[in-house]
Amino acid sequence: MKKNSIFKVQKDAWDIFLRGLHAVDPFSAIERNVKLTGSILEIEGQKYDLDNYKQVIVVGAGKAGATMSRAIEDILGDRISFGHVNVKYGHVDTVNTINIHEAAHPVPDQAGYDGAQIIYDILKKTGEDDLIIFLLSGGGSALMPLPAEGISLVEKQQVTNLLLSCGATINEINTIRKHISRFKGGYLAGVAYPSTLITLIISDVIGDPLDTIASGPTVADNSTFDDCLRILKKYDIIAEAPGSITRHINLGVAGVAKETPKKGDPIFSKIQNVIVANNMNAFKAGKKKAIELGYTPLILSTLIEGETKDVAKVHAAIAKEIRKSGNPIAPPACILSGGETTVTIKGNGLGGRNQEFALAVAIEIEGMENTVIASIATDGTDGPTNPAGAIADGSTIERGKKLGVSAVEYLDNNDSYHFFHKIGDLLISGPTNTNVMDFRIILVV
Amino acid sequence: MKKNSIFKVQKDAWDIFLRGLHAVDPFSAIERNVKLTGSILEIEGQKYDLDNYKQVIVVGAGKAGATMSRAIEDILGDRISFGHVNVKYGHVDTVNTINIHEAAHPVPDQAGYDGAQIIYDILKKTGEDDLIIFLLSGGGSALMPLPAEGISLVEKQQVTNLLLSCGATINEINTIRKHISRFKGGYLAGVAYPSTLITLIISDVIGDPLDTIASGPTVADNSTFDDCLRILKKYDIIAEAPGSITRHINLGVAGVAKETPKKGDPIFSKIQNVIVANNMNAFKAGKKKAIELGYTPLILSTLIEGETKDVAKVHAAIAKEIRKSGNPIAPPACILSGGETTVTIKGNGLGGRNQEFALAVAIEIEGMENTVIASIATDGTDGPTNPAGAIADGSTIERGKKLGVSAVEYLDNNDSYHFFHKIGDLLISGPTNTNVMDFRIILVV
Repeated sequence: MKKNSIFKVQKDAWDIFLRGLHAVDPFSAIERNVKLTGSILEIEGQKYDLDNYKQVIVVGAGKAGATMSRAIEDILGDRISFGHVNVKYGHVDTVNTINIHEAAHPVPDQAGYDGAQIIYDILKKTGEDDLIIFLLSGGGSALMPLPAEGISLVEKQQVTNLLLSCGATINEINTIRKHISRFKGGYLAGVAYPSTLITLIISDVIGDPLDTIASGPTVADNSTFDDCLRILKKYDIIAEAPGSITRHINLGVAGVAKETPKKGDPIFSKIQNVIVANNMNAFKAGKKKAIELGYTPLILSTLIEGETKDVAKVHAAIAKEIRKSGNPIAPPACILSGGETTVTIKGNGLGGRNQEFALAVAIEIEGMENTVIASIATDGTDGPTNPAGAIADGSTIERGKKLGVSAVEYLDNNDSYHFFHKIGDLLISGPTNTNVMDFRIILVV
Repeated sequence: MKKNSIFKVQKDAWDIFLRGLHAVDPFSAIERNVKLTGSILEIEGQKYDLDNYKQVIVVGAGKAGATMSRAIEDILGDRISFGHVNVKYGHVDTVNTINIHEAAHPVPDQAGYDGAQIIYDILKKTGEDDLIIFLLSGGGSALMPLPAEGISLVEKQQVTNLLLSCGATINEINTIRKHISRFKGGYLAGVAYPSTLITLIISDVIGDPLDTIASGPTVADNSTFDDCLRILKKYDIIAEAPGSITRHINLGVAGVAKETPKKGDPIFSKIQNVIVANNMNAFKAGKKKAIELGYTPLILSTLIEGETKDVAKVHAAIAKEIRKSGNPIAPPACILSGGETTVTIKGNGLGGRNQEFALAVAIEIEGMENTVIASIATDGTDGPTNPAGAIADGSTIERGKKLGVSAVEYLDNNDSYHFFHKIGDLLISGPTNTNVMDFRIILVV
């Protein structure tokens, strides 16, 4: 009987995840946010009369691009004049009008560059009478690479690697990358101006910062060419950086190359940026499912970062407290938690942050009854592995022991994949064509 | 105005802590749990008629011992025949009947040994007609050192250091330590038998495991001499360990030295173990104060462990989510969180886990308005420093910059004390004569 009950709880966790995932599916996300009534397109209260526009053009980039395209076609139909969206190889879908252009991710390739050039040419030709719908999702930056003139993709990659190797922060790297692009950091908005532009965004970044998701192509930037020069000097890499890049930055400092557009720039006057799906959307839906299944739900936070195994300890502490004292909520309890943690790799095993989380949490909840904790990547791919994540319960460690696998050893070797593969508790969803970071569930019944 | 309001929130945090601290003060703790009506002593529903006992004897050990003694004297008065309690140097209080015996902590000294010997002699002489009240609190193990016969304090310390240096787990170390003691691991219960024994415990251990707090002198033990031998073999330290200790363990394995008493042993039939104060008691009281001050309170967990700066990130993520979406609760919100984190020391600065937590959390909440996060050691001493902890808000980092101190650099150097000393946000309570681990407060208004 106990065995049956834990299976039921495991199934509940999976069902809660699926409900959440459904809410952030590109199709649901666009349907929820984009309404067409007659010729009136309404998005977050803002109305556009399509009869006022000569052309409705769809462009975009990102791993969810193909399904977002299908969704927007489903709503706008032949209102769409034409379109071009860069997607990751294989991430295709059935579309009619919009051209789906496959390219490489996470390392950009020539196909991505060619597709970005097509988007650039389309935007350059649009005018005041055109409405552009820009579909943006995770991977959009790498899938739409368009360095400033005179800079090659390889040189751009070189300076990124150089910055990484000398310990530059992600913020510093992005400052440089925005300034050597023709799209990032709001530059794309300048290319599209004076068209009307609506950016529909599936957010895969903690806190949904518009200037960070896909490097903020349609959002004002705060950083400057002066900052870029300061960063190159700080890490003493002016000599090492590709000449084309230092030259471009120096031109920017001299006021010759154009600065990233700043807040208040008129090019942003005709732009609406809309987050159509994020981590919280998934949790709100998951929460409803949890209530249907009889759980008291609590959304802990969508903003969780930190070393995976320590974050797991805090989650285990909450699960144990639920059992011990009914705090922060009494059983049957469902805690939902999101964001994206990091793994400091020390071993040479295989795994992803979600599987590592599940393994670390399993060690902490060993022996606890009627408790299930799952961690799942909403894009269906946890790190360099096939599964989306893994599921842990009070018997995980014991079952591992019986099969000759030690959780502590596998965790030390960052080999969560092989641990869960062995005990059969990997969670496999297949590619989901979306990404709103991670979905963690604690169920204590 | 804004400045005034953050001062108000800081004061609220401190007041919530003080209310919590009051509830775990040894005096409040004993008053809450021990009732005397006529000759009837009632503790957690269990009744003892003091008229049935020839003597009521108070013994004990721990940093809270003196104030616990004063509290039990306040209730039992001249019903107490005599008493002897080992405390840390300087941790004294005004008592009448009970002898307060000062000794060294955390490294035991001869005074501790002498005091433990006195307790041993007292317990040895008691009989069926005697009621013993045993006062136990943090530090009780080190303050009441009584190795098995033939083993010196120095040898006991040697084997502990040896085990630590070869990476033995705390569980393995405790298994050995219990088996080479005359008190730990339930041995004390055997010495006191057949007296009636009530152990009143202030818990400074996560989850209040009775067999771990002060090494469980009045609780059954699970481990065996066979385990001890296995551990010595595992780390290959049989040759290195002091001869007196390997000899004692071998005598145990051979059935000559007495095994730690196990569950079901009749010596436990007349023992009541009672946790009179723990982390949760502090939070329940703090929660009431938070409600009085107009906050919606949520007790997250009293069981939180993990690397301090990663635990801080999770707490910051919760604070930010409260502000962003009103989850897990809407502002004005008060999250209470306990347990005890660890710090992996990489720098050579000064600090404690609570100050490090406050510094790490300050970095994460930089710029957030009307948010205060404090972390405080309930014993009033955070690590090897004077303050109990520190308090962070959205302006902490900026104020540091203005005074020329970089939070990131001070955190990297584990120098939280000097950072908060510089900006004036240390929290100083003085010694509290109690310890129920840490008290963290998030206030978002």
